[in-house]
This record gives sequence, structure tokens and C-alpha cells, in this order.
Amino acid sequence: MSGFIGCDASFDDASIVLFGAPFDSTTSYRPGARSGPAAICGESYGIETYSPYQDADLTDRAICDLGTLDLPFGDPTPALDMIERQASDIFDAGKLALMFGGEHLVTLGALRAAVRRWSGLQIIHFDAHADLRDDYLGAKLSHACVMRRAHELVGDGRIHQFCIRSGDRDEFKFADAHTSMTKFDTAGIGELAARLAAEGAPVYLTIDLDCLDPAVLPGTGTPEAGGIGFDELLGAVRCVCGTRVVGADIVELAPGLDASGASTACACKLARELMLALKID
Amino acid sequence: MSGFIGCDASFDDASIVLFGAPFDSTTSYRPGARSGPAAICGESYGIETYSPYQDADLTDRAICDLGTLDLPFGDPTPALDMIERQASDIFDAGKLALMFGGEHLVTLGALRAAVRRWSGLQIIHFDAHADLRDDYLGAKLSHACVMRRAHELVGDGRIHQFCIRSGDRDEFKFADAHTSMTKFDTAGIGELAARLAAEGAPVYLTIDLDCLDPAVLPGTGTPEAGGIGFDELLGAVRCVCGTRVVGADIVELAPGLDASGASTACACKLARELMLALKID
Amino acid sequence: MSGFIGCDASFDDASIVLFGAPFDSTTSYRPGARSGPAAICGESYGIETYSPYQDADLTDRAICDLGTLDLPFGDPTPALDMIERQASDIFDAGKLALMFGGEHLVTLGALRAAVRRWSGLQIIHFDAHADLRDDYLGAKLSHACVMRRAHELVGDGRIHQFCIRSGDRDEFKFADAHTSMTKFDTAGIGELAARLAAEGAPVYLTIDLDCLDPAVLPGTGTPEAGGIGFDELLGAVRCVCGTRVVGADIVELAPGLDASGASTACACKLARELMLALKID
Amino acid sequence: MSGFIGCDASFDDASIVLFGAPFDSTTSYRPGARSGPAAICGESYGIETYSPYQDADLTDRAICDLGTLDLPFGDPTPALDMIERQASDIFDAGKLALMFGGEHLVTLGALRAAVRRWSGLQIIHFDAHADLRDDYLGAKLSHACVMRRAHELVGDGRIHQFCIRSGDRDEFKFADAHTSMTKFDTAGIGELAARLAAEGAPVYLTIDLDCLDPAVLPGTGTPEAGGIGFDELLGAVRCVCGTRVVGADIVELAPGLDASGASTACACKLARELMLALKID
Amino acid sequence: MSGFIGCDASFDDASIVLFGAPFDSTTSYRPGARSGPAAICGESYGIETYSPYQDADLTDRAICDLGTLDLPFGDPTPALDMIERQASDIFDAGKLALMFGGEHLVTLGALRAAVRRWSGLQIIHFDAHADLRDDYLGAKLSHACVMRRAHELVGDGRIHQFCIRSGDRDEFKFADAHTSMTKFDTAGIGELAARLAAEGAPVYLTIDLDCLDPAVLPGTGTPEAGGIGFDELLGAVRCVCGTRVVGADIVELAPGLDASGASTACACKLARELMLALKID
Amino acid sequence: MSGFIGCDASFDDASIVLFGAPFDSTTSYRPGARSGPAAICGESYGIETYSPYQDADLTDRAICDLGTLDLPFGDPTPALDMIERQASDIFDAGKLALMFGGEHLVTLGALRAAVRRWSGLQIIHFDAHADLRDDYLGAKLSHACVMRRAHELVGDGRIHQFCIRSGDRDEFKFADAHTSMTKFDTAGIGELAARLAAEGAPVYLTIDLDCLDPAVLPGTGTPEAGGIGFDELLGAVRCVCGTRVVGADIVELAPGLDASGASTACACKLARELMLALKID
Repeated sequence: MSGFIGCDASFDDASIVLFGAPFDSTTSYRPGARSGPAAICGESYGIETYSPYQDADLTDRAICDLGTLDLPFGDPTPALDMIERQASDIFDAGKLALMFGGEHLVTLGALRAAVRRWSGLQIIHFDAHADLRDDYLGAKLSHACVMRRAHELVGDGRIHQFCIRSGDRDEFKFADAHTSMTKFDTAGIGELAARLAAEGAPVYLTIDLDCLDPAVLPGTGTPEAGGIGFDELLGAVRCVCGTRVVGADIVELAPGLDASGASTACACKLARELMLALKID
Repeated sequence: MSGFIGCDASFDDASIVLFGAPFDSTTSYRPGARSGPAAICGESYGIETYSPYQDADLTDRAICDLGTLDLPFGDPTPALDMIERQASDIFDAGKLALMFGGEHLVTLGALRAAVRRWSGLQIIHFDAHADLRDDYLGAKLSHACVMRRAHELVGDGRIHQFCIRSGDRDEFKFADAHTSMTKFDTAGIGELAARLAAEGAPVYLTIDLDCLDPAVLPGTGTPEAGGIGFDELLGAVRCVCGTRVVGADIVELAPGLDASGASTACACKLARELMLALKID
Repeated sequence: MSGFIGCDASFDDASIVLFGAPFDSTTSYRPGARSGPAAICGESYGIETYSPYQDADLTDRAICDLGTLDLPFGDPTPALDMIERQASDIFDAGKLALMFGGEHLVTLGALRAAVRRWSGLQIIHFDAHADLRDDYLGAKLSHACVMRRAHELVGDGRIHQFCIRSGDRDEFKFADAHTSMTKFDTAGIGELAARLAAEGAPVYLTIDLDCLDPAVLPGTGTPEAGGIGFDELLGAVRCVCGTRVVGADIVELAPGLDASGASTACACKLARELMLALKID
Repeated sequence: MSGFIGCDASFDDASIVLFGAPFDSTTSYRPGARSGPAAICGESYGIETYSPYQDADLTDRAICDLGTLDLPFGDPTPALDMIERQASDIFDAGKLALMFGGEHLVTLGALRAAVRRWSGLQIIHFDAHADLRDDYLGAKLSHACVMRRAHELVGDGRIHQFCIRSGDRDEFKFADAHTSMTKFDTAGIGELAARLAAEGAPVYLTIDLDCLDPAVLPGTGTPEAGGIGFDELLGAVRCVCGTRVVGADIVELAPGLDASGASTACACKLARELMLALKID
Repeated sequence: MSGFIGCDASFDDASIVLFGAPFDSTTSYRPGARSGPAAICGESYGIETYSPYQDADLTDRAICDLGTLDLPFGDPTPALDMIERQASDIFDAGKLALMFGGEHLVTLGALRAAVRRWSGLQIIHFDAHADLRDDYLGAKLSHACVMRRAHELVGDGRIHQFCIRSGDRDEFKFADAHTSMTKFDTAGIGELAARLAAEGAPVYLTIDLDCLDPAVLPGTGTPEAGGIGFDELLGAVRCVCGTRVVGADIVELAPGLDASGASTACACKLARELMLALKID
Repeated sequence: MSGFIGCDASFDDASIVLFGAPFDSTTSYRPGARSGPAAICGESYGIETYSPYQDADLTDRAICDLGTLDLPFGDPTPALDMIERQASDIFDAGKLALMFGGEHLVTLGALRAAVRRWSGLQIIHFDAHADLRDDYLGAKLSHACVMRRAHELVGDGRIHQFCIRSGDRDEFKFADAHTSMTKFDTAGIGELAARLAAEGAPVYLTIDLDCLDPAVLPGTGTPEAGGIGFDELLGAVRCVCGTRVVGADIVELAPGLDASGASTACACKLARELMLALKID
């Protein structure tokens, strides 16, 4: 029982490769996302490998779980380097990478690897927060700045944000000029996915679990009322999986903040559905 | 204050008889449902006896609360025997039985009593999980197998499952062949209830509280995202109560898993509404 | 960081004045609302001052946070007197008062001040509970009686209740005769607000947070299933803010009952949106 | 299972009579002691009726558990009257009263009954706090003032305080002049008990559970480091029971503040040992 | 990170072999011990492999962690069989077995294997509870009966109980006649260990963590005030390790009952010290 | 209520100046110490300003509470710089600095300021952990390395460690060669304090609260069984205050890990006693 349920393929055999990035040192409000990867893996045994939504089973796919990286805490630079190297190894082997955070900054490591490999990378971003600050209390490498750093990597018009309902005024102004942002919900995700699929564009999908309403997922560092429900997120994720997704992550689960365990169980189910929906060749 | 609020009739006077089945030894994931009956009873004093939904009051009905059975833990056989005896006593006295679990396996005890008394018994089952495994780690008497055991009692086409969104592939195949299953929600409950009412069929209603979304009821052993809301469940239960319900149960509340108390309060309110909706002669 | 985020105007400069009423001695079920004001203030630093819903920012407004009153516990009479004095001071200075409770009884202190100043005061009341008992275990000053006491101040037809889904039969009868009550949701709030705005009537808005579904806000003393969602409450509050609101409160947050912090974060966001929606001259 | 384990004698047959006083409206810091009586009773089934400390069994004694009083919240005056009446009824029937709180103010009700019946009453008081304030934020009836009120009933030299390690300077000055106070521990309890036993003086024993170290009993409203251990308290209580105890109470358990349940289990065990140690004729 | 820290030897190389027995179906009061093995393993990374108490390091020893058994819940018979087989395999390979529970009944499985292999087995038992009932609510296989079942295996005078402070009168009578029991503490452990060491008797050591005071270890199903401290237990365990210990277990950690994690950390440290103190050839 | 109770002097008037350092980004195990300063300040209103231990009152002293620094998360370098500047400002004004952490690394900032000001600085260190690693997963600035960094500042023989009971073998070897370490308890603290007092040496006192037993203080990131009690720590601290203490800190309270609040209350009391014991000119 030492990996996500039903994900016991070897690296060589796998089409999808999982790894955990248990880092939360730049979390600005309530830490605890470092425990996300271990919780998602450990509690995955409370759900089934089979999905009645997709009539598909994890045991029918070849998925490898590499476990969690041994990331140092504090300065995020070495941690991001390790994440980038891990993601690169997976991409270089021609496999899909799925990372479990950790705080949202860990996405930057995987994005660096993806951007180096695929020109024209598109980023689809589900989140309550815009994450577009240029710095947070002076720090450029903060979970509150991750999409701003991503913008520096991919440029205008390549970041597609959904469910955003929090940020300062400057972040929303930045979004107006530089990203494509849908506030509050996932409206338009179908059209976007159809277009990107038609173009064959490589897509990186990053899911900050706080896009969900805190009723559904209270176990996150900065819960923000007014989010979407599980079914809406599930539908949107399956839409995105119609495109050429090359990498993805699920971040900001802070399992200790929801003692009922429902947040972790929700993250596990979302991970399963995502793994079953991803197109593999 | 030693029973459900407003339920202080004597056994002889009562039309509805409550009892608790505090057993959770076969729970496969997180135990704690044993504390359900005591919590439902104790916290019922936080709600009112009056329902503005039905403009009806528990104090207008004759309901007896027998308290909880002293069930042994471990091997479920003697516990199921005690439950069966208790339910039989209530049925034999011409009264409606309402049982509070406990894990879902306790339903089997009550069903055995009901099946012996009424031929043609129909079972209406609200649950996130199919509970149709033939065994769980070798055990035939497990909460994951309770509907499979029920099927052995009533046969094909008599079990009507709603809200099911978890199980292994074989369980869904079994359902295709042997039960009538509605995935995810309560669609079709109105038609079913109308048909059964017209037939005058005896009905046993079993409500696994995890049919509700974990947002509404996180305090259960195996929370499963994507469930229904309280209003939908309430509507469905009132539908079912238009049929000839002879027995019912509410199971799988694990109060210790939701420290906020909202799960228990929800179970109490559902119990009140059920008691007020049941047809008594 | 010693007041609600972005609310650092002086009393003299402010249009809106906040204060906390940390009292919960008459809470009949689970206490803890006394910690509401400190939690709302302290956790407000987890949200932003900017609202993407209204494209407005707290820093554009002049809001003064007076902190919490030092209320004695036990007999509510002196506490209500202190609250009344505080509210009167704010009203006398021509400013809008916004109070954070505490249990719902604290509303009575503010209402006394408002009624003395404005004839024809209208009360808009969001709550799960009718709060119309004449007494609770003999006590006239109880959170379960606060709207009955309010009725004694303003008379028939001036109290507009929404989302009510709990009470005893007599409270609903009283409402039929003396208040205007909408059960379960906020239907009709638009029409009411339009009418009151046209009349220019002074309005006091009292929001018992348990009007929200416990999924959204479990951190309250008496959670009651079947409530409204955050977006519906937000819409209703913005409707009400189209009228001439002279005072408002947000009560019954019991932060200790929701260890995830989501309830407190929700209250903070609601408070921000209310402060941004209030019309100031 | 509706009373303390092993305490099922009728009132008439009983030598010791238990009742609960679930009141905490004057608690100045963290409420929750109202839930003490129900928790002590409910969780008593987790301990045994037999004491290996005293080789004695609750089932050998005749103890009646009357359950908890229905006390109104808020103004403490009517609640104290109800407590006084209940204690008087027990004393008048020639029986020992044992009350479970609730906050410490409930002791005042029982003391009023005891003082009226026995002249020369002595009070033995275990507590972390002196409870000798003349008022708390203006309120004379507060848990922080209960021993001051007791002093008004019995006068100088009749209150014997142990384990005291918190109070303001004036309280310690008051103690110097008017009570007999042992700071920090129970030193001298043996001598005191021997003297009072020799005199045959009637004794009321009040145990604020926060006399124990918070390591042992964290579930109390105002935990205060530096307290005594369980064995020391048990020894001291058994000492006191060598005197002519006419009434006793155990107060300030706030079970919700210790989710592990260890605090409640400790209170249950202390209650059992006290009941077994009390001399009955 | 998939085993106890520093325990990564292969089975063949190891002198000590660990395994987990995650079973708690017969727990009579509060379940949760099933999560003990996973918690002890997972949280072991919060302590060091080095002991300053013994100046020894786990990395200097050859210890194999087999992980946890997949035990069925409910009827304990098949679970006990699986445990017995596992222990036998370890004993047959000439290695020391160390089992992490789970509830105390799991000890019976290991004892059956040990008794079959070693005649003259002596059992040293640290516990708050005597565990000497003949049955519990009719069940012979219950954690409350495990030492009675052990007595049936080894006979009179071979079970040495320490720290016992709870049980019914009959259990203490049984102990007087059939076991050697030290109430409350570990007095005499040195003499016993010296005698058994001199005799060269094979010893099975079973540590129910509730022998510790709940202040030290609140995370257990039935906390019982008045227990020993960590240093006393550590000293006693090191004493016992001077004898010829052939098997040992640490049971009844219920990690979910102590959200602070201190109970689990304590169990981890005790396990390390035990592993370092065990004599290996 | 916006500072530690009774500490409302201005900076200029004060002899002792408090500030908070809410940083925990390098915490290697369980984060949460960032919330320590706010909790200590907020919950200080649950204790008294008067100490019966020292017959002294905070209101008799001139103490200024500057509140908490706005420290960036992630890379510790800028945070340490800010702390160093704050401490220098206090030292330069001829006042005693008392810092509340935060994780233990924050001590390094204050030490840098102290070392620059006083040659011959001695460090007295209470802790469960040696904190003498040269790096932790490659990071030199980690809470697990803080005393190693301190050693680089002050050199051999100037660091006096007490209560140490965890570390790897190399740390203990390093201590043998370079620091003066007392394992497990505070033995010898009196002699040390007397010697340093006689020498008039400037002393910096750093208290990692996990020196206390987890029974007393479970609310810390890495609880380690076998610690000292509150009274022993209090005695040791008062001993140290007989020397020329120029700065001090109390670190590693993680209030969210102890929901009972007892850990925070303990830290508050320790802070009060320390402030009352410090010698001021």
C-alpha cells in the first residue's frame, strides 16, 4: 500500500507517472499543504479503482507512482529545481506527468520543464485566487505569484484561468491585459477545450483545489467562499482532457485542516477521474 | 432527555418504534458509526419537534424510543440476531420499525425480520456505495456486502438503488443484472414510489447517509464526493413515504468524524422528517 | 493588524463604524459565538480588501473598526445596555453601524438604539430560526426570542424574515399574524428591497449566519440543514443594500466549532461584501 | 444507560443523590462547561463500577442519579434558585448531594442550601483560581467570584483553598485575611481533614477540575499550568472523605475542549472514587 | 518512506521483524486502533534513528518491516489466524517478532504462535486494564478478554501484569488466583526481569499503551487516569529486555483520538527504544 | 486587547520590549509555529497579570509590545534580516528584547544582533532537540541547524544546552566537543547561573517549548516524549534570570496542533513569569 491505489506500473511500462511535491514554505496564510501528497496516496485506499462516471478502471491503465520528492524547506529555489528535474525526466521518457502538491508554487517547477520541452504550451488554471502578484512581501517565489511567473514563461494569451474570485485590484488588471480569465466558474471551458484540441496545442493543467467551494473542500490553506461544486469541476476536467494534456497537477490540499477527511477523499476521487480521463497514446 | 426528542410514547401506544444498533465492527475504512445512535438521540434536542416543511409535529404522533441495543462487537452474527429479534418484536406488534445505525450491515438484521413477515418486500436504498460485493477480504458479513446479502433474501428486481457513485466494476455489473440502480441521484424515485404505492407493496427503506454530499454530511466513514443535497434527499424520502413503508433505517453516521456537529444535526432533522412523513394507520 | 483588514479610518472620518459584541451567555445549545468578533477581525487578513464581485475595494472607503466591547457575561441586561450605547454613539454621529456578534440577542441592543432614532424602522432578518419565542425556559432575553422582542419595538409588518426553516408551531403562527416570513430561501427579497427603497424607509439588516447551509457554514451554534448557498446570500445582501440601510449586524459565528476555518473565512468575505455594498452618502 | 454507571437506585433508597447543573453563562473565557454533566454521565460507561484503589464497587452502594436540571441560560439568578431547591430537597431527605457542573458559579446554589441547613459549614475548595473577586466586569454572580460569595455566606476561616495558582493581587490579599489558602498543591490537607473530622464539622467539598494540571485535564475553560496530578488529587479527596461531608461538587469540565476524551474519563473516575469514599451512615 | 524509519533490512538479513496488525473490531468503547500501525510507521520520520538514552542507532541493527497485514474486519477468527501465521513465520526463521496493533486482541494471535514454539513461555504485560474477563457481552474473543485467553494458553503464574488500575471485581479476584499482578505501577519489574533472565525463560512482552497516563498518551480507546510516565515505562521496558524476549507488541494506539500527534510520536519513540534494547544474538 | 496583557508601555518608557517573529518556513516536520506570536498575545487575556509565584505584577513593570513583524515566507534570509534589525533597535535603545516565535531559526536573527553588541555572549538553550546539524536536506538555514549556526557566532563553550533528548549521533558528538550539554533535564542549571552571574556575562536565553514534556505542551511541531514538567522549567528560568540576561525568546509553539488551548496558555504563563523574573536596571 505504498502508492496511489491501482498505480503500480513500473516507470518504463507507465503512460502516466505520478509524483508528490510536499513543499509549503511560501504559503502565506495557513501551512499544511506539504502533507497533501502523503494524504492523497494513503487515503486513496478509501476509494475504488473503478469509476462509474467513465466506466473505466485504474487497473486497466499503466500508471507509475514514484512517491514523494525529498524537498528541502525554506528557500524554494532548490525545491523547484528538484521538481523541474523530476518532471523533465518524465517528459523526456515520453510520459505524462501528474504532480500532487504541496502549495501552488510547486507548479512552477513542472512548468519550467514543460515549457522547455514544448513550445506553444497552453496553461489551464483552476483556482479561487488569481496568483498574479508580482511579489508577496518582497518574495518573487511565492504561491501568490505562481501564475505571474508562469506568464513570464509562456507570455500573453496562453494562460486560461477559471473560477477566480479573489485577488487584489492589480491582479485583475493584469489578467485583463495578459491572461484569459473567467471569474467565479468554468463558463467557456468547453469552447476553449475544443479550440485547443483542434489546434493540437500542448496543455498543462493546474488545479488548485480551492477552486472548489469550501463546503466541498475546506481542507485548504485559504478557503474562499463562492466556489464551484465537485460535479462542475469534474465536468471541466474531463473537457480539458479532450485536449493534448502533457502534464497536470493537483495542489493546495492541506489535509490537516479538514479532520473529517472529506477533503482528502475528494482530492483522491478527482485524481482518479483525471487519470482515467487523460488521453494516452 | 433519554430518547429522541418528542418520542416518549410507550411501546404499546406507539405507531412507530425507534431503536439504535450501535455496531461498526465490519466497517472497512474508518470506524465510528457505533456512536451514531447515541449522537442522534442526544443531539435531537438541538432541533425542534415541529417541521415547517410538513406543518406537523412529533408531539402529535405516538412514537416510542426503545434506546440502543447492547450489541457485542467483533463477529457480527450475534449482533445481527439481536437486531432481527428486536425488529421482529416491533413488526409482530403491528408497528413500524425505525432503526438508527451503526454501519450498514445492521440493515441485514432488520431485513431478515421484514422478509420473514412480508412476502414481496421491496427495498429502496439510498447510498453512495453499491454494497453489492460478494465478500470483502473473505468476509460475507461486511457493510460492503449488505445489499448482496439482501438480494439473496428478496431476489431480482426488488432492490431499488439510488445515488450510487462508488463500487468496483463487478458490483455495477451485478446491479445491471439483478437490481434496479440509479447512479448519482434520485431520478425516477417519483415514478417508482407511485408504482409501488399503487401495488400496495410492502417497502423497506434504508438510507445510508453517505448518499448525501460530504459537504452536507462529512461525518461518515467513507465520504464520497458528488452526492445529493439535503433538499433532494428530503424530497425523495417524502416520496417513498407515500408507499406502504413497513420499516426503515438511517445508517453510517459517524459523529466523531465531524466535530462541527453539523452531520449529526442533519441526521436528526432527516429522522424527524421521516417520522413525520411515514404513513401510519 | 488590530482591526478588520482595510478598515483603519478614524471614527470622525468614517462613514461606516464597526464594533464587536462578544456575548453568548443566552445561547441555548452550543456556546462559542463570543469568539466571533475576534475571529472575523483576525482572519480578515486571509482575504483581500478588493472584491471582484463589485469591483470595489475597502481601501477606497472610510471605515473605522472600534474593536470589541468589554461585555460582562451572565445576565444580558448590562451587555445590551452597552451595545445600545455604542450603537447610539455611532448613529448620533451620522454614521452607519455594523456590529459583529456574538449570539443573536446582541441585535436587540442595536435595534433599541435604531428604533429610538428612526421612526418607521424596517427590519430585514436572515436566519434559519424564527427567533419568535416569547421566552425560553422562562427567560425573555434569549437568542431564541430576539425577533419577538424586536416585534415589541417595531410592531406588526415591519419585520421581514427570510430563510426560516426552524421553530416551534407557535412561532410560525406568530409569524403568520405579525411578521412577513419567507420560509427556506430569499424569494421575494428583490421586490421587498425595491419597495423599501422607493419608500426611503430606514432599514436595519440582521444576518444570522445560520441562514446559510451548514455545508457552507458549519461553525455556528445550531446548524440547520437545508439552508441557502453563499451566492444566494450575497445576492440578497446586495439587494438589501439598495435600500436605506442605517445599521446591520452579522451574528452567530462560533469559530471554534469549525476547525477548518472555512466558516470564519466565509463570514469575513460576507462582511467585506456588505461593507462595499452599503450606500454611504 | 441514562445515568452514571452503577447509580440506579431510586431517590428514596439512595444515600447519595447525583444531579447535573449544565450552566456556563458567566464563564469569562471559554464556555463549554454546560456539557459537563451529560459527558460525565454518558462516558461513565467507559470506566468500571469497581475501584481497585478502594476495593469497592458502585453497585454495592445506593446511589440515585436524578439527571440534569433544565436551567435557563443568561441571568444566573433563576438557575441558582433551581440548583438551591434541588440541593435542599436532597439535604432535607437526609441524603448526600453530589452535583456535576457546569461552571463554578453553580456551587453557590448548592452552598446556599447547605448553609441554611447546617450551621458551622466548612468549605474545602480545590481549584487553580482563587475565585475571590468581588465582581467581574461589574457582575457579582460570576464564576470568578464564587468563593467571594461563599465567604459572604460562611464568614472568615471557614473556606479552605488548595492548589490555587492564579488570581489578581487583591484576591490573594483577601485570602490572607479571610480564607485559609494553600498555594499550588494540597499540602496540609491531611491535618485539616483530621481536625475537621475530630470536630465533626459539616463539610462541603467543591472540586474545580482545573486544580489538576492541564496535562491531566486540558478540557476546561481556563487551563492553568503547574497543577497537581491525578494521584495527588485522589489522595486529597479520600482524605476529605474522612470528614463529615454533606455535599460535594465536581465542576468546570468542558468536554468539547479535549477531543481525546481523556479529560472526561478522568472526571468520571474521580467521581467514582469520590462516591466510593464518601462516608454514608 | 514505506516502513519504520531505519528498518530497511530484508527479511533474511534481519534479526528483528516488524509487522502491523490493523484490527480493532472487538474494541468495546472507542475504535480507531486499526490506524495505529500506519501512524507509527508514517510518523516515525518525525523522530531520529539514534537514541541518546542508549547511545545506539537503528541503522546499526538489521530490522525488517513487513508492513501491515490485510486483515478482514468483523469476526476476529480469520484475523487471528493470519496474525498467528505471520508470527510463526518469523519465529520459525529464528527472528524476533515485533507487532504493532491494533487492539489488544491481536496479541492472542502472536501468543498462539509463541506458545507453540516455546514451552515455558512467560508473558509480561503492561496495561491499565486487567483484560481478564471470561467474555464481554458474550464474546470470548474480545480485547477485554485477551489475558484470560492467554492464561488458557500458558496457565497459572506465567502472566506478569503491571500498571493495572481498571477491571471488574472478578478480574482482580482471578488475578489473585492465577496471575502475578502489580497494580498502578511497575514496582518489582527489576526483580522479575532478573529472575527470568537467570532462568533463561522465553518471554513475550505485550505493551498496551494505555498503561501510560493519558496525559502522556491520550490517543487510546479507553484512557484511564493514574498511569505511569514515559520514563518509568522506558526504564521498565529496558529491564525486560535484559531477559530472553522472543516476541513483543505495542498495541492500542488510536492515533485519530489525539489530534496533536503527541501520542503517536510517543509510541514511535517507545518502539525505537524497544528495538534498540532487545537482545539479539 | 492588541498586545500581551499588561504590556502597554511605550517603547521609550519600556525596560523590556516584546515582538513576534511569525515565521515557520524551514520547519521540517509539522508547520504551524507561525501562529505562535498571535496566539500568545491573544490568549494572554486568559491569564492574570499577577504572579503568585513571584508576588509580582506585569502592571508594575514597563513593558512594550511591538506586535509581530511582517515577515516574508520561503527563503529565510530576508526574514532573519528583519528580525536582526528589530532586535538591534531594541538593544541599541538599552532595553531587553523578548521575542516570541515562530520556529527556532528565528533565534538566529536575534543572536546576530546580540553578538554584534556584546562580546562574550553566553547562550542558554532549553530544547528537546540538539539543533546542531550542519545542514538539513542541504539547507544551512533550518530550524534543525540553529544552534550550529549559533556556534559559528560564539564559538566553543559558550552554548549551554539543557533537556536535550533527540538528535542524530553526529549532533551529540559535536556537542561533546563544542557545547556544554545536559541531556534530559535541567541538572546543573543553578551552578551555571551562579557562575555566569558572578562573571557578569551577558546571556541570551532561548526556550524551545518542546523542552517541556508533550503532556504539558503537545502543541509544537515535533513533540518528543520524556521532557520536563512546567515547574522544573519555571525554576530553571528563574535561575537563569539571576544572570545578566540581555535578550530572550520563546519559540516553537504551534497553537493549532493543540486544540484544547492548554499549550498556548502554558506559553503565556511562562512568558509572564519570565518577564517578571528578568532583572531590569
